[in-house]
Amino acid sequence: MKIDILSLFPEMFTGPLNQSIVGKAIENKIVDVDITNYRDYTQNRQHHVDDYPYGGGAGMLLQVQPLFDALDAIEEKNQGLGSVILVDPAGRKFNQKIAKELSMKKHLTFICGHYEGYDDRIRTRVTDEISLGDYILTGGELAAMVIIDAAVRLLPGTLGNNESAPGDSFSDGLLEYPQYTRPSEYRGLKVPDILLSGNHQKIDEWRQRESLKRTLERRPDLVKKIELSDKQKKWLQDLKKM
Amino acid sequence: MKIDILSLFPEMFTGPLNQSIVGKAIENKIVDVDITNYRDYTQNRQHHVDDYPYGGGAGMLLQVQPLFDALDAIEEKNQGLGSVILVDPAGRKFNQKIAKELSMKKHLTFICGHYEGYDDRIRTRVTDEISLGDYILTGGELAAMVIIDAAVRLLPGTLGNNESAPGDSFSDGLLEYPQYTRPSEYRGLKVPDILLSGNHQKIDEWRQRESLKRTLERRPDLVKKIELSDKQKKWLQDLKKM
Repeated sequence: MKIDILSLFPEMFTGPLNQSIVGKAIENKIVDVDITNYRDYTQNRQHHVDDYPYGGGAGMLLQVQPLFDALDAIEEKNQGLGSVILVDPAGRKFNQKIAKELSMKKHLTFICGHYEGYDDRIRTRVTDEISLGDYILTGGELAAMVIIDAAVRLLPGTLGNNESAPGDSFSDGLLEYPQYTRPSEYRGLKVPDILLSGNHQKIDEWRQRESLKRTLERRPDLVKKIELSDKQKKWLQDLKKM
Repeated sequence: MKIDILSLFPEMFTGPLNQSIVGKAIENKIVDVDITNYRDYTQNRQHHVDDYPYGGGAGMLLQVQPLFDALDAIEEKNQGLGSVILVDPAGRKFNQKIAKELSMKKHLTFICGHYEGYDDRIRTRVTDEISLGDYILTGGELAAMVIIDAAVRLLPGTLGNNESAPGDSFSDGLLEYPQYTRPSEYRGLKVPDILLSGNHQKIDEWRQRESLKRTLERRPDLVKKIELSDKQKKWLQDLKKM
Protein backbone atom coordinates (compact mmCIF):
# COMPACT_ATOMS: atom_id res chain seq x y z
CA MET A 1 0.00 0.00 0.00
CA LYS A 2 1.20 3.49 -0.87
CA ILE A 3 0.35 6.25 1.61
CA ASP A 4 0.90 9.95 0.92
CA ILE A 5 0.51 12.50 3.67
CA LEU A 6 0.27 16.26 3.14
CA SER A 7 1.23 18.04 6.34
CA LEU A 8 2.82 21.21 7.69
CA PHE A 9 4.33 19.17 10.55
CA PRO A 10 6.14 16.18 9.02
CA GLU A 11 8.16 15.72 12.22
CA MET A 12 4.98 14.77 14.09
CA PHE A 13 5.03 11.46 12.21
CA THR A 14 8.59 10.50 13.11
CA GLY A 15 7.81 8.58 16.30
CA PRO A 16 4.57 6.88 15.32
CA LEU A 17 5.79 5.77 11.88
CA ASN A 18 9.00 4.24 13.22
CA GLN A 19 7.49 2.23 16.05
CA SER A 20 5.36 -0.81 16.58
CA ILE A 21 3.19 -2.34 13.85
CA VAL A 22 3.25 0.53 11.36
CA GLY A 23 7.03 0.85 11.72
CA LYS A 24 7.42 -2.87 11.06
CA ALA A 25 5.06 -2.74 8.06
CA ILE A 26 7.20 0.03 6.54
CA GLU A 27 10.39 -1.91 7.28
CA ASN A 28 8.90 -5.01 5.62
CA LYS A 29 7.83 -2.95 2.60
CA ILE A 30 4.16 -3.76 3.13
CA VAL A 31 3.50 -0.02 3.25
CA ASP A 32 5.36 2.85 1.67
CA VAL A 33 4.75 6.24 3.30
CA ASP A 34 5.70 9.61 1.80
CA ILE A 35 5.18 12.87 3.64
CA THR A 36 4.94 16.13 1.69
CA ASN A 37 5.21 19.47 3.45
CA TYR A 38 2.89 21.66 1.44
CA ARG A 39 4.62 24.75 2.75
CA ASP A 40 7.25 23.87 0.10
CA TYR A 41 4.63 24.65 -2.56
CA THR A 42 3.78 28.21 -1.54
CA GLN A 43 4.28 30.89 -4.20
CA ASN A 44 4.87 33.78 -1.81
CA ARG A 45 8.25 34.86 -0.55
CA GLN A 46 7.35 34.43 3.14
CA HIS A 47 6.11 30.85 2.59
CA HIS A 48 2.78 31.70 4.17
CA VAL A 49 0.22 28.96 3.82
CA ASP A 50 -2.65 30.75 5.54
CA ASP A 51 -4.65 33.95 5.29
CA TYR A 52 -7.64 35.72 6.92
CA PRO A 53 -11.15 34.36 6.29
CA TYR A 54 -13.35 36.22 3.81
CA GLY A 55 -16.23 37.80 5.63
CA GLY A 56 -14.26 38.17 8.87
CA GLY A 57 -13.86 35.91 11.88
CA ALA A 58 -11.18 34.59 14.19
CA GLY A 59 -8.28 32.43 13.11
CA MET A 60 -6.44 31.88 9.87
CA LEU A 61 -7.36 29.50 7.06
CA LEU A 62 -5.15 27.32 4.91
CA GLN A 63 -5.10 28.54 1.33
CA VAL A 64 -5.93 26.32 -1.63
CA GLN A 65 -2.90 27.09 -3.82
CA PRO A 66 -0.14 25.29 -1.86
CA LEU A 67 -2.36 22.25 -1.28
CA PHE A 68 -3.53 22.06 -4.91
CA ASP A 69 0.04 22.33 -6.20
CA ALA A 70 1.32 19.73 -3.72
CA LEU A 71 -1.50 17.36 -4.79
CA ASP A 72 -0.56 17.94 -8.45
CA ALA A 73 3.07 17.03 -7.74
CA ILE A 74 2.11 13.81 -5.88
CA GLU A 75 -0.38 12.92 -8.62
CA GLU A 76 2.22 13.29 -11.33
CA LYS A 77 4.82 11.28 -9.44
CA ASN A 78 2.43 8.40 -8.70
CA GLN A 79 0.19 8.51 -11.79
CA GLY A 80 -2.71 9.23 -9.48
CA LEU A 81 -3.66 10.04 -5.90
CA GLY A 82 -5.77 7.02 -4.97
CA SER A 83 -8.37 7.93 -2.34
CA VAL A 84 -7.86 11.52 -1.23
CA ILE A 85 -8.91 11.67 2.40
CA LEU A 86 -9.64 14.83 4.32
CA VAL A 87 -9.74 14.27 8.05
CA ASP A 88 -12.47 16.57 9.27
CA PRO A 89 -15.21 16.63 11.94
CA ALA A 90 -17.79 16.90 9.15
CA GLY A 91 -16.67 13.60 7.58
CA ARG A 92 -18.21 10.14 7.93
CA LYS A 93 -17.43 8.72 11.33
CA PHE A 94 -14.47 6.36 11.34
CA ASN A 95 -15.13 2.79 12.44
CA GLN A 96 -13.73 -0.70 12.01
CA LYS A 97 -15.66 -1.21 8.76
CA ILE A 98 -14.04 1.86 7.20
CA ALA A 99 -10.63 0.69 8.48
CA LYS A 100 -11.20 -2.60 6.64
CA GLU A 101 -12.36 -0.76 3.51
CA LEU A 102 -9.26 1.46 3.49
CA SER A 103 -6.97 -1.54 4.09
CA MET A 104 -8.08 -2.87 0.66
CA LYS A 105 -6.96 0.25 -1.23
CA LYS A 106 -3.67 0.50 -3.10
CA HIS A 107 -3.08 4.21 -2.51
CA LEU A 108 -4.30 6.60 0.18
CA THR A 109 -3.55 10.32 0.23
CA PHE A 110 -4.23 12.18 3.48
CA ILE A 111 -4.66 15.95 3.66
CA CYS A 112 -3.86 17.17 7.18
CA GLY A 113 -5.27 20.59 7.95
CA HIS A 114 -4.04 22.63 10.87
CA TYR A 115 -4.99 25.73 12.86
CA GLU A 116 -8.51 27.11 12.52
CA GLY A 117 -9.38 25.39 9.26
CA TYR A 118 -9.02 25.52 5.49
CA ASP A 119 -10.50 27.11 2.44
CA ASP A 120 -13.54 25.01 1.60
CA ARG A 121 -12.50 24.71 -2.06
CA ILE A 122 -10.00 22.08 -0.91
CA ARG A 123 -13.01 19.73 -0.77
CA THR A 124 -13.15 19.74 -4.59
CA ARG A 125 -9.99 17.58 -4.66
CA VAL A 126 -11.12 15.24 -1.93
CA THR A 127 -12.79 11.85 -2.53
CA ASP A 128 -13.45 10.88 1.09
CA GLU A 129 -13.96 12.80 4.32
CA ILE A 130 -13.46 10.99 7.60
CA SER A 131 -14.02 12.10 11.19
CA LEU A 132 -12.39 10.33 14.13
CA GLY A 133 -15.24 11.33 16.39
CA ASP A 134 -17.09 14.37 17.71
CA TYR A 135 -14.10 16.29 19.01
CA ILE A 136 -11.68 18.92 17.74
CA LEU A 137 -7.94 18.40 17.33
CA THR A 138 -5.30 21.03 16.61
CA GLY A 139 -4.58 19.37 13.28
CA GLY A 140 -5.26 16.40 11.04
CA GLU A 141 -1.91 14.73 11.73
CA LEU A 142 -2.90 12.64 14.77
CA ALA A 143 -6.17 11.72 13.11
CA ALA A 144 -4.36 10.54 9.97
CA MET A 145 -2.00 8.46 12.13
CA VAL A 146 -4.93 6.83 13.91
CA ILE A 147 -6.61 5.93 10.62
CA ILE A 148 -3.33 4.63 9.15
CA ASP A 149 -2.67 2.53 12.26
CA ALA A 150 -6.16 0.99 12.23
CA ALA A 151 -5.97 0.19 8.50
CA VAL A 152 -2.36 -1.00 8.30
CA ARG A 153 -2.74 -3.53 11.12
CA LEU A 154 -5.36 -5.28 8.99
CA LEU A 155 -2.97 -5.78 6.05
CA PRO A 156 -1.83 -9.39 5.55
CA GLY A 157 1.60 -10.01 7.10
CA THR A 158 1.36 -7.07 9.49
CA LEU A 159 0.28 -8.64 12.77
CA GLY A 160 2.66 -11.28 14.07
CA ASN A 161 1.94 -14.05 16.56
CA ASN A 162 2.19 -11.47 19.27
CA GLU A 163 -0.99 -9.77 18.20
CA SER A 164 -4.20 -10.85 16.62
CA ALA A 165 -7.13 -9.42 14.73
CA PRO A 166 -10.09 -11.83 14.58
CA GLY A 167 -10.89 -11.83 18.34
CA ASP A 168 -10.82 -8.04 18.66
CA SER A 169 -13.64 -5.90 19.92
CA PHE A 170 -16.08 -5.13 17.05
CA SER A 171 -14.87 -8.05 14.91
CA ASP A 172 -18.12 -9.84 15.85
CA GLY A 173 -19.98 -6.64 16.68
CA LEU A 174 -19.41 -6.98 20.45
CA LEU A 175 -16.81 -5.79 22.93
CA GLU A 176 -14.07 -8.20 23.89
CA TYR A 177 -14.44 -10.45 26.95
CA PRO A 178 -12.12 -9.88 29.96
CA GLN A 179 -8.75 -11.58 29.66
CA TYR A 180 -6.18 -12.58 32.27
CA THR A 181 -2.60 -13.74 32.39
CA ARG A 182 -0.12 -14.83 35.05
CA PRO A 183 0.07 -14.68 38.01
CA SER A 184 -3.28 -16.23 38.93
CA GLU A 185 -3.34 -14.11 42.08
CA TYR A 186 -1.75 -10.69 42.47
CA ARG A 187 -2.23 -8.35 45.43
CA GLY A 188 -5.30 -10.36 46.37
CA LEU A 189 -6.86 -10.09 42.91
CA LYS A 190 -7.72 -13.50 41.47
CA VAL A 191 -8.26 -14.80 37.97
CA PRO A 192 -11.79 -16.30 37.56
CA ASP A 193 -11.64 -20.04 38.42
CA ILE A 194 -13.25 -21.10 35.16
CA LEU A 195 -10.22 -19.91 33.17
CA LEU A 196 -7.94 -22.21 35.17
CA SER A 197 -10.26 -25.22 34.77
CA GLY A 198 -8.92 -26.51 31.47
CA ASN A 199 -12.49 -27.11 30.25
CA HIS A 200 -12.30 -25.36 26.90
CA GLN A 201 -15.94 -25.68 26.03
CA LYS A 202 -16.96 -24.01 29.27
CA ILE A 203 -14.26 -21.37 28.91
CA ASP A 204 -15.48 -20.57 25.42
CA GLU A 205 -19.04 -20.24 26.66
CA TRP A 206 -17.99 -18.07 29.61
CA ARG A 207 -16.13 -15.78 27.23
CA GLN A 208 -19.05 -15.41 24.86
CA ARG A 209 -21.35 -14.61 27.77
CA GLU A 210 -18.91 -12.12 29.32
CA SER A 211 -18.50 -10.43 25.95
CA LEU A 212 -22.26 -10.04 25.67
CA LYS A 213 -22.50 -8.89 29.29
CA ARG A 214 -19.84 -6.23 28.93
CA THR A 215 -21.36 -4.96 25.70
CA LEU A 216 -24.82 -4.82 27.28
CA GLU A 217 -23.50 -2.85 30.26
CA ARG A 218 -21.33 -0.43 28.31
CA ARG A 219 -22.61 -0.28 24.76
CA PRO A 220 -26.23 -1.45 24.58
CA ASP A 221 -26.40 0.26 21.16
CA LEU A 222 -24.04 -2.40 19.76
CA VAL A 223 -26.16 -5.29 21.04
CA LYS A 224 -29.13 -3.88 19.12
CA LYS A 225 -27.15 -3.88 15.89
CA ILE A 226 -26.20 -7.57 15.73
CA GLU A 227 -28.23 -10.66 15.02
CA LEU A 228 -28.20 -12.73 18.19
CA SER A 229 -28.02 -16.52 18.25
CA ASP A 230 -30.60 -18.41 20.31
CA LYS A 231 -28.00 -18.96 23.00
CA GLN A 232 -27.17 -15.27 23.10
CA LYS A 233 -30.86 -14.39 23.33
CA LYS A 234 -31.22 -16.63 26.37
CA TRP A 235 -28.14 -15.15 28.05
CA LEU A 236 -29.47 -11.70 27.34
CA GLN A 237 -32.74 -12.51 29.11
CA ASP A 238 -30.80 -13.88 32.10
CA LEU A 239 -28.52 -10.83 32.19
CA LYS A 240 -31.44 -8.42 32.09
CA LYS A 241 -32.94 -10.12 35.15
CA MET A 242 -29.76 -9.53 37.16
CA MET B 1 -1.70 20.40 34.11
CA LYS B 2 0.37 17.34 34.89
CA ILE B 3 0.15 14.43 32.47
CA ASP B 4 1.67 11.02 33.11
CA ILE B 5 1.81 8.44 30.36
CA LEU B 6 2.59 4.75 30.87
CA SER B 7 3.78 3.25 27.61
CA LEU B 8 6.06 0.59 26.15
CA PHE B 9 6.84 2.92 23.24
CA PRO B 10 7.90 6.29 24.67
CA GLU B 11 9.54 7.26 21.36
CA MET B 12 6.12 7.33 19.69
CA PHE B 13 5.41 10.55 21.58
CA THR B 14 8.56 12.39 20.50
CA GLY B 15 7.13 14.01 17.37
CA PRO B 16 3.61 14.82 18.54
CA LEU B 17 4.71 16.23 21.92
CA ASN B 18 7.32 18.53 20.41
CA GLN B 19 5.19 20.08 17.69
CA SER B 20 2.32 22.46 17.30
CA ILE B 21 -0.02 23.39 20.16
CA VAL B 22 0.92 20.65 22.62
CA GLY B 23 4.62 21.32 22.03
CA LYS B 24 4.07 25.03 22.71
CA ALA B 25 2.01 24.29 25.82
CA ILE B 26 4.86 22.19 27.21
CA GLU B 27 7.39 24.89 26.31
CA ASN B 28 5.24 27.50 28.06
CA LYS B 29 4.91 25.24 31.12
CA ILE B 30 1.12 25.07 30.81
CA VAL B 31 1.46 21.29 30.69
CA ASP B 32 4.09 19.01 32.14
CA VAL B 33 4.30 15.58 30.54
CA ASP B 34 6.17 12.57 31.97
CA ILE B 35 6.41 9.29 30.13
CA THR B 36 7.13 6.10 32.06
CA ASN B 37 8.15 2.93 30.25
CA TYR B 38 6.59 0.24 32.40
CA ARG B 39 8.99 -2.31 30.96
CA ASP B 40 11.45 -0.75 33.45
CA TYR B 41 9.29 -2.16 36.26
CA THR B 42 9.34 -5.83 35.28
CA GLN B 43 10.63 -8.27 37.87
CA ASN B 44 11.84 -10.93 35.45
CA ARG B 45 15.31 -11.09 33.98
CA GLN B 46 14.13 -10.95 30.34
CA HIS B 47 12.06 -7.80 30.98
CA HIS B 48 8.97 -9.49 29.60
CA VAL B 49 5.78 -7.50 30.12
CA ASP B 50 3.38 -10.00 28.54
CA ASP B 51 2.30 -13.61 28.89
CA TYR B 52 -0.20 -16.10 27.44
CA PRO B 53 -3.90 -15.69 28.25
CA TYR B 54 -5.41 -18.03 30.86
CA GLY B 55 -7.88 -20.32 29.16
CA GLY B 56 -6.06 -20.18 25.83
CA GLY B 57 -6.44 -17.93 22.82
CA ALA B 58 -4.33 -15.98 20.38
CA GLY B 59 -2.01 -13.14 21.30
CA MET B 60 -0.22 -12.10 24.43
CA LEU B 61 -1.57 -10.03 27.31
CA LEU B 62 0.13 -7.33 29.33
CA GLN B 63 0.69 -8.46 32.90
CA VAL B 64 -0.52 -6.53 35.92
CA GLN B 65 2.72 -6.47 37.92
CA PRO B 66 4.81 -4.02 35.82
CA LEU B 67 1.83 -1.68 35.40
CA PHE B 68 0.88 -1.77 39.08
CA ASP B 69 4.46 -1.09 40.18
CA ALA B 70 4.87 1.73 37.63
CA LEU B 71 1.61 3.29 38.88
CA ASP B 72 2.87 3.02 42.47
CA ALA B 73 6.08 4.84 41.55
CA ILE B 74 4.22 7.67 39.80
CA GLU B 75 1.74 7.90 42.66
CA GLU B 76 4.51 8.25 45.21
CA LYS B 77 6.39 10.86 43.20
CA ASN B 78 3.28 13.01 42.63
CA GLN B 79 1.34 12.33 45.84
CA GLY B 80 -1.39 10.87 43.68
CA LEU B 81 -2.32 9.81 40.16
CA GLY B 82 -5.19 12.16 39.34
CA SER B 83 -7.60 10.60 36.89
CA VAL B 84 -6.25 7.25 35.74
CA ILE B 85 -7.42 6.81 32.17
CA LEU B 86 -7.41 3.55 30.27
CA VAL B 87 -7.86 4.05 26.55
CA ASP B 88 -9.96 1.11 25.47
CA PRO B 89 -12.72 0.31 22.95
CA ALA B 90 -14.99 -0.59 25.88
CA GLY B 91 -14.69 2.90 27.40
CA ARG B 92 -17.09 5.84 27.17
CA LYS B 93 -16.88 7.38 23.74
CA PHE B 94 -14.65 10.42 23.59
CA ASN B 95 -16.28 13.70 22.55
CA GLN B 96 -15.83 17.43 22.91
CA LYS B 97 -17.63 17.45 26.27
CA ILE B 98 -15.18 14.91 27.71
CA ALA B 99 -12.27 16.92 26.25
CA LYS B 100 -13.56 19.95 28.14
CA GLU B 101 -14.05 17.90 31.32
CA LEU B 102 -10.46 16.56 31.16
CA SER B 103 -9.07 20.05 30.46
CA MET B 104 -10.30 21.07 33.95
CA LYS B 105 -8.31 18.36 35.74
CA LYS B 106 -4.98 18.97 37.43
CA HIS B 107 -3.47 15.55 36.80
CA LEU B 108 -4.16 12.91 34.17
CA THR B 109 -2.48 9.51 34.04
CA PHE B 110 -2.84 7.51 30.82
CA ILE B 111 -2.28 3.76 30.63
CA CYS B 112 -1.40 2.76 27.07
CA GLY B 113 -1.92 -0.92 26.34
CA HIS B 114 -0.35 -2.59 23.36
CA TYR B 115 -0.58 -5.82 21.41
CA GLU B 116 -3.59 -8.06 21.93
CA GLY B 117 -4.70 -6.60 25.25
CA TYR B 118 -4.09 -6.61 28.99
CA ASP B 119 -4.93 -8.49 32.09
CA ASP B 120 -8.38 -7.26 33.14
CA ARG B 121 -7.24 -6.68 36.72
CA ILE B 122 -5.59 -3.49 35.45
CA ARG B 123 -9.09 -2.02 35.49
CA THR B 124 -9.02 -2.04 39.32
CA ARG B 125 -6.52 0.86 39.24
CA VAL B 126 -8.38 2.83 36.60
CA THR B 127 -10.84 5.66 37.30
CA ASP B 128 -11.92 6.42 33.73
CA GLU B 129 -12.10 4.39 30.52
CA ILE B 130 -12.27 6.24 27.22
CA SER B 131 -12.72 4.98 23.68
CA LEU B 132 -11.77 7.11 20.66
CA GLY B 133 -14.39 5.40 18.55
CA ASP B 134 -15.46 1.98 17.31
CA TYR B 135 -12.15 0.88 15.83
CA ILE B 136 -9.07 -1.00 16.95
CA LEU B 137 -5.57 0.46 17.16
CA THR B 138 -2.30 -1.39 17.70
CA GLY B 139 -1.86 0.42 21.00
CA GLY B 140 -3.16 3.12 23.29
CA GLU B 141 -0.41 5.59 22.43
CA LEU B 142 -2.06 7.35 19.48
CA ALA B 143 -5.37 7.39 21.32
CA ALA B 144 -3.75 9.02 24.36
CA MET B 145 -2.13 11.63 22.09
CA VAL B 146 -5.48 12.43 20.48
CA ILE B 147 -7.15 12.89 23.87
CA ILE B 148 -4.25 15.00 25.16
CA ASP B 149 -4.33 17.18 22.03
CA ALA B 150 -8.09 17.76 22.27
CA ALA B 151 -7.90 18.59 26.00
CA VAL B 152 -4.71 20.69 25.99
CA ARG B 153 -5.90 23.01 23.22
CA LEU B 154 -8.78 24.04 25.51
CA LEU B 155 -6.43 25.17 28.31
CA PRO B 156 -6.24 28.95 28.79
CA GLY B 157 -3.18 30.43 27.05
CA THR B 158 -2.78 27.52 24.66
CA LEU B 159 -4.44 28.74 21.46
CA GLY B 160 -2.91 31.92 20.06
CA ASN B 161 -4.47 34.37 17.63
CA ASN B 162 -3.73 31.93 14.87
CA GLU B 163 -6.28 29.49 16.11
CA SER B 164 -9.56 29.71 17.90
CA ALA B 165 -11.91 27.58 19.91
CA PRO B 166 -15.39 29.14 20.24
CA GLY B 167 -16.37 28.91 16.51
CA ASP B 168 -15.33 25.25 16.18
CA SER B 169 -17.55 22.44 15.07
CA PHE B 170 -19.54 21.09 18.08
CA SER B 171 -19.00 24.24 20.18
CA ASP B 172 -22.65 25.13 19.43
CA GLY B 173 -23.64 21.55 18.68
CA LEU B 174 -23.42 22.00 14.90
CA LEU B 175 -20.73 21.49 12.25
CA GLU B 176 -18.77 24.53 11.17
CA TYR B 177 -19.90 26.59 8.13
CA PRO B 178 -17.67 26.62 5.00
CA GLN B 179 -14.84 29.12 5.13
CA TYR B 180 -12.76 30.73 2.39
CA THR B 181 -9.61 32.79 2.08
CA ARG B 182 -7.65 34.46 -0.71
CA PRO B 183 -7.60 34.37 -3.67
CA SER B 184 -11.30 34.98 -4.40
CA GLU B 185 -10.97 32.89 -7.55
CA TYR B 186 -8.56 29.99 -8.05
CA ARG B 187 -8.60 27.59 -10.99
CA GLY B 188 -12.12 28.73 -11.77
CA LEU B 189 -13.37 28.09 -8.22
CA LYS B 190 -14.99 31.19 -6.72
CA VAL B 191 -15.67 32.29 -3.16
CA PRO B 192 -19.44 32.83 -2.55
CA ASP B 193 -20.31 36.49 -3.40
CA ILE B 194 -21.96 37.12 -0.04
CA LEU B 195 -18.61 36.77 1.77
CA LEU B 196 -17.13 39.58 -0.35
CA SER B 197 -20.14 41.87 0.21
CA GLY B 198 -18.98 43.51 3.42
CA ASN B 199 -22.50 43.14 4.86
CA HIS B 200 -21.67 41.55 8.18
CA GLN B 201 -25.23 40.94 9.26
CA LYS B 202 -25.95 39.02 6.07
CA ILE B 203 -22.65 37.17 6.27
CA ASP B 204 -23.43 36.12 9.80
CA GLU B 205 -26.84 34.89 8.77
CA TRP B 206 -25.42 33.02 5.75
CA ARG B 207 -22.89 31.29 8.01
CA GLN B 208 -25.50 30.21 10.54
CA ARG B 209 -27.67 28.83 7.75
CA GLU B 210 -24.77 27.02 6.05
CA SER B 211 -23.74 25.53 9.38
CA LEU B 212 -27.26 24.19 9.87
CA LYS B 213 -27.38 22.99 6.23
CA ARG B 214 -24.10 21.10 6.43
CA THR B 215 -25.09 19.51 9.72
CA LEU B 216 -28.47 18.48 8.34
CA GLU B 217 -26.85 16.89 5.28
CA ARG B 218 -24.03 15.12 7.08
CA ARG B 219 -25.03 14.69 10.71
CA PRO B 220 -28.80 14.89 11.09
CA ASP B 221 -28.34 13.22 14.52
CA LEU B 222 -26.64 16.39 15.80
CA VAL B 223 -29.52 18.63 14.67
CA LYS B 224 -31.91 16.54 16.74
CA LYS B 225 -29.80 17.06 19.86
CA ILE B 226 -29.85 20.87 19.99
CA GLU B 227 -32.56 23.34 20.85
CA LEU B 228 -33.25 25.34 17.70
CA SER B 229 -34.06 29.06 17.66
CA ASP B 230 -37.16 30.20 15.77
CA LYS B 231 -34.94 31.39 12.93
CA GLN B 232 -33.20 28.02 12.74
CA LYS B 233 -36.54 26.23 12.73
CA LYS B 234 -37.65 28.28 9.73
CA TRP B 235 -34.38 27.62 7.88
CA LEU B 236 -34.73 23.95 8.61
CA GLN B 237 -38.20 23.89 7.06
CA ASP B 238 -36.85 25.69 3.97
CA LEU B 239 -33.87 23.31 3.73
CA LYS B 240 -36.07 20.25 3.96
CA LYS B 241 -38.15 21.51 1.02
CA MET B 242 -35.04 21.75 -1.18
